[in-house]
Amino acid sequence: MTDYICDLALIDDRVEEQVLIRVADGRFEHVEPGGQTEPSATRLRGLTLAGLANAHSHAFHRALRSRTQADRGSFWTWRDLMYTAAERLDPDNYHRLARATFAEMALAGITSVGEFHYVHHQPDGTPYQNVNAMGEAVLAAAAEAGIRITLLDTVYLHGGLSADGYLPPEGTQRRFSDATADDWVGRVEQLTPGSNQLVGAAIHSVRAVDPTSMKLVAEWAGHQRVPIHAHVSEQEAENDQCRARHDMTPTEVLHDAEVLSDRFSAVHATHLTTHDVELLATTDSTVCVCPSTEHDLGDGIGPTTELVTAGVAIALGSDSHAIIDQFEECRAIELDERVRSRRRGHHCVSELLAMATTAGQASLGWPDAGLIRPGQRADLVTITLDSVRTAGVATDVAAAAAVFAATAADVTHVIIDGTLIVEDGHHGRVDVTTELHASIHDLMDR
Amino acid sequence: MTDYICDLALIDDRVEEQVLIRVADGRFEHVEPGGQTEPSATRLRGLTLAGLANAHSHAFHRALRSRTQADRGSFWTWRDLMYTAAERLDPDNYHRLARATFAEMALAGITSVGEFHYVHHQPDGTPYQNVNAMGEAVLAAAAEAGIRITLLDTVYLHGGLSADGYLPPEGTQRRFSDATADDWVGRVEQLTPGSNQLVGAAIHSVRAVDPTSMKLVAEWAGHQRVPIHAHVSEQEAENDQCRARHDMTPTEVLHDAEVLSDRFSAVHATHLTTHDVELLATTDSTVCVCPSTEHDLGDGIGPTTELVTAGVAIALGSDSHAIIDQFEECRAIELDERVRSRRRGHHCVSELLAMATTAGQASLGWPDAGLIRPGQRADLVTITLDSVRTAGVATDVAAAAAVFAATAADVTHVIIDGTLIVEDGHHGRVDVTTELHASIHDLMDR
Repeated sequence: MTDYICDLALIDDRVEEQVLIRVADGRFEHVEPGGQTEPSATRLRGLTLAGLANAHSHAFHRALRSRTQADRGSFWTWRDLMYTAAERLDPDNYHRLARATFAEMALAGITSVGEFHYVHHQPDGTPYQNVNAMGEAVLAAAAEAGIRITLLDTVYLHGGLSADGYLPPEGTQRRFSDATADDWVGRVEQLTPGSNQLVGAAIHSVRAVDPTSMKLVAEWAGHQRVPIHAHVSEQEAENDQCRARHDMTPTEVLHDAEVLSDRFSAVHATHLTTHDVELLATTDSTVCVCPSTEHDLGDGIGPTTELVTAGVAIALGSDSHAIIDQFEECRAIELDERVRSRRRGHHCVSELLAMATTAGQASLGWPDAGLIRPGQRADLVTITLDSVRTAGVATDVAAAAAVFAATAADVTHVIIDGTLIVEDGHHGRVDVTTELHASIHDLMDR
Repeated sequence: MTDYICDLALIDDRVEEQVLIRVADGRFEHVEPGGQTEPSATRLRGLTLAGLANAHSHAFHRALRSRTQADRGSFWTWRDLMYTAAERLDPDNYHRLARATFAEMALAGITSVGEFHYVHHQPDGTPYQNVNAMGEAVLAAAAEAGIRITLLDTVYLHGGLSADGYLPPEGTQRRFSDATADDWVGRVEQLTPGSNQLVGAAIHSVRAVDPTSMKLVAEWAGHQRVPIHAHVSEQEAENDQCRARHDMTPTEVLHDAEVLSDRFSAVHATHLTTHDVELLATTDSTVCVCPSTEHDLGDGIGPTTELVTAGVAIALGSDSHAIIDQFEECRAIELDERVRSRRRGHHCVSELLAMATTAGQASLGWPDAGLIRPGQRADLVTITLDSVRTAGVATDVAAAAAVFAATAADVTHVIIDGTLIVEDGHHGRVDVTTELHASIHDLMDR
């Protein structure tokens, strides 16, 4: 049993003072604003929030940060480098890189990650002797970095979509591909997640998975009652290809294959029709927006106001890890909307924080995380209000400072499932910058 | 005479190793890549850049950070709070707030600031006994914070523009207004800037200054050979009002009044016509873009690619200080363009860094700053390549990491005009967070 006393904490959308929080067995047992300070309680200065979720990650993309901006950073600079990195991964170097990346996430206040994992096999497509060598490396990496993970094991069968049909996987894509959706199920059922770990499903995209296979994967996820995610309508070209083949939008194809449900998250969903929004809303699906990546790749700005108005929950992901900072992602949702509409005031602070916390956690299969409330998983994230970025706010606008002024650099303490993982800005288990340097250098500078 | 040895430094657009830099009398005397380490040399780890310029600042807006996001942050939340703060300023509290804000800028690697200064008189419009009490407070604040300043003393005569004519200044606006442009000249000529300080001119906007007065102010700036700035076409409503009165765009009105020149900077310039871009280009004017503020206020995305193609230099400003981070402003220029065009690869890294350095410094009247080259002003900014944000880059992409991955939190050392102002992330002269807290609390929490 551990007691924390927070100078300020966000409880039920209110900034409360002197909040006593008692944690037992990884859950909140007692939460009391204006509580008595126990001498044994650990004091958390600044503002304490619930745990942030990173609902869409490709951990190995961390190795590409900044490098994809060379030569003006065309789309091909990005794609060539991404395939180069994907080609060179093996279970050992992936484990080391993913652990460092997940540790960077922990430092940023991220308590659970959804790893959209598609590099499954050897470079020529042959399975590893342990068919889940790569997935297990990722699960181990998260455990060692101290963060909760939902491994969204990704089905990727085809190399692309034309009006005539599907193309076979080529080159590096062979690493991503199980021969059939049945083979995918056979492999994934052998995965054994640890405590505070989940294995869910992902459909890479309408380009890489046909409707029959989608349906089978969705049925599996339904039986298992686990999350299922898919990349949806990130760029208009995908919509065009999908329409040419199916005479439907990607969302309509997924709906037709019975993929949409309250366990489904559409990742990106940048270019949606009104009908797409309706389908997502009526099925209680979530949309996972990844603003920093959508900016980096020039995808565009998604219809977040329309989605919220329709009742669709929005989660957030750092995706390609151009940056890892859920506060930046959070404010980008509102700021992009301001730029798009030329007007302030779309999503309020508590809506934006819910995207980074409850909606993201639920999208990853942790509906019992994202709030500081008895019975919930004991995730806490403390940001300093004494940095040059956050200094000067009054108590009643401290939550606005978290969303609009703080950065990941302001996170001081992170507690995940009751365990203190980050203290005074330092990760207790991983020498993060050394590991980032070493693992990225090893992968990229050959 | 002081020697620095930089592990990496950006010299003439190349990342060079082991760069010996000798500084004498506030200027670079010798710059030598692969230089011998003198035992007395101070080592600068990470990547060292030239000094960043913040070409557009309203220092007192720092007090509004995060507070303007309450209640979903409508335009009126912002404007009401801004006027409340403006109303309460006096020479003492302005001095303290501006010093803390300028010190925050120094911590972010900003070596010179353009303070677009318009709060001149007492709340009822009566001049202070010392007519420049406010401007002198701002100049002193910059000197104490150790950063170079160009005080862009702002002429603000009218309270607004209608199709019929100009409205008189009302309420708080009376503080901003000199009775006539001649009165403005009379006041400004009494200002006595210190060393490494300049007094330039600013025309608040076409709403606040009539063409005859603009012309007089531009003539004064021409005789003095000092910079002149103006808010231009930040929002479309301003263009509409200007057309209704003058049958011209704001840029055309300024051109007609002979304001445009190589000493002129158009601030924002978000909504320009093709003719506006031509006028700015043929007169060698600069445009100062303020991405974080333009996002915050929902202004829109300016035509940076068109401006660069036309040969217009772009400078950067943090304006309302929603954040103070020139790396973020820098990358926003490219990322906004990607979102607007749905394509990567518009402005290359060295173009973006030139906006934050040479173009900004020149816009503020310091054409001898912004490069690490013998004879230039000795401004140096070192960022760590050992933070979780920047770790993992190879030497050849270190500059891309500065633009696309670093934040102000990564700045470790800042040297301004040869003086070490920031060391290991600490400001040597101002207790920045304490001063931000105290000065903002004093102004806002009454």
